[in-house]
Amino acid sequence: MAKFYGIGVGPGDSSLLTLKAVEILSTIDVLLIPDGKNDGKSLAFDIVKDYLNPNAVLEYLHFPMVLDKEVINKAGYDAAAIVSKYIDEGKDIAFITLGDTSIYSTYSYIVDNLSRDIEIETIPGITSFCAAAALINRPLCQGDEIFTVIPATKDYESMKEVVDISGGCALMKVYNHSDKVVRLIEELKLDAAIIKRVGQAGESVSYDIEDELNRDKQYFSIVIARKGK
Amino acid sequence: MAKFYGIGVGPGDSSLLTLKAVEILSTIDVLLIPDGKNDGKSLAFDIVKDYLNPNAVLEYLHFPMVLDKEVINKAGYDAAAIVSKYIDEGKDIAFITLGDTSIYSTYSYIVDNLSRDIEIETIPGITSFCAAAALINRPLCQGDEIFTVIPATKDYESMKEVVDISGGCALMKVYNHSDKVVRLIEELKLDAAIIKRVGQAGESVSYDIEDELNRDKQYFSIVIARKGK
Repeated sequence: MAKFYGIGVGPGDSSLLTLKAVEILSTIDVLLIPDGKNDGKSLAFDIVKDYLNPNAVLEYLHFPMVLDKEVINKAGYDAAAIVSKYIDEGKDIAFITLGDTSIYSTYSYIVDNLSRDIEIETIPGITSFCAAAALINRPLCQGDEIFTVIPATKDYESMKEVVDISGGCALMKVYNHSDKVVRLIEELKLDAAIIKRVGQAGESVSYDIEDELNRDKQYFSIVIARKGK
Repeated sequence: MAKFYGIGVGPGDSSLLTLKAVEILSTIDVLLIPDGKNDGKSLAFDIVKDYLNPNAVLEYLHFPMVLDKEVINKAGYDAAAIVSKYIDEGKDIAFITLGDTSIYSTYSYIVDNLSRDIEIETIPGITSFCAAAALINRPLCQGDEIFTVIPATKDYESMKEVVDISGGCALMKVYNHSDKVVRLIEELKLDAAIIKRVGQAGESVSYDIEDELNRDKQYFSIVIARKGK
């Protein structure tokens, strides 16, 4: 029977694909490619293209980059209809997602909208925060510490409460929230680094968070931080 | 110049190794293998053995599985001395760690103790919580939710405070803390699953956390949970 695969393709570097992802990509009939900006460009596709079955059909999906649940769920519903169509034709189909399938991925909205009789296999991927920590040879958490992943879109007090109880944290979507992020690092005396475009062309690391956030508002920016020693 | 590599080998299934990990494993001169129980068995080694340079020297390291920082730091110091010795001989050496290098890995204690002139490259791996979520085709976090990783060794009130503010969480080291974990799931009405030995032989999934935790205290157990809908 045909199968639906969700594949986490890691943050940007093709060499961070798993063996399992490569094996599946080489055999699938159809590839579903998320296209957030609706411009036909896809970093996820660039990561996998050298490993893809050359005869695979490419289907671009417009997945709006918004937080409105109704809008995203509608996109998931539409994507699930495309998946079902190909499965009914007996074709194996894979959706690719940056990083990991379970961490802030639109993949879950497709799964939620799929009929339960469709067989699904999810292949986890390397998360951006693990790749960022690896790039600077640092731990995210040790011993019995709590580790948290926090979108900087949250209000300051919530962020502070959670970071305060954590040994290490990763702050996501920081590019438009430099005031909150800088204040958090100062107030809690965090040992922080900002990594931009991890695993992609133009990858960079800086420890001057304020300067880096104000100089260049880059979507693929992540701050990883630990409590000061 | 010779180089020290830290490689995250994922939770258990060799097919979750990255292409980069496989490439490095095939060329290194020495492999450092953590051996927590000092019994010569290593799950991390089982994961990589089919991809290893057949001429690589194997060095088993006893890394005690304790939380005492002084004890672990001493083990890191001893391991760093072994790394330095091989680097001085011009040999490439890799340390392997289950899951990812930055998440609760003893790897960071080796890095901390290494002379700064030794070149280090860290290869991130698939985390157990991402593999667990993938196994049941579920998200860990969506939208602007906070995601937390919490060792169940923490006190109940701290765990509750953090989980309460999170959209999703992964509870680690749950096997000896069933009372706290079950209470947390009930009080916060979490939608939870327990995954044992993810990616390993005997992998299992259950949604009856209390029964599963009391029936079989398995070290490789992880609970992933989301706020009820």
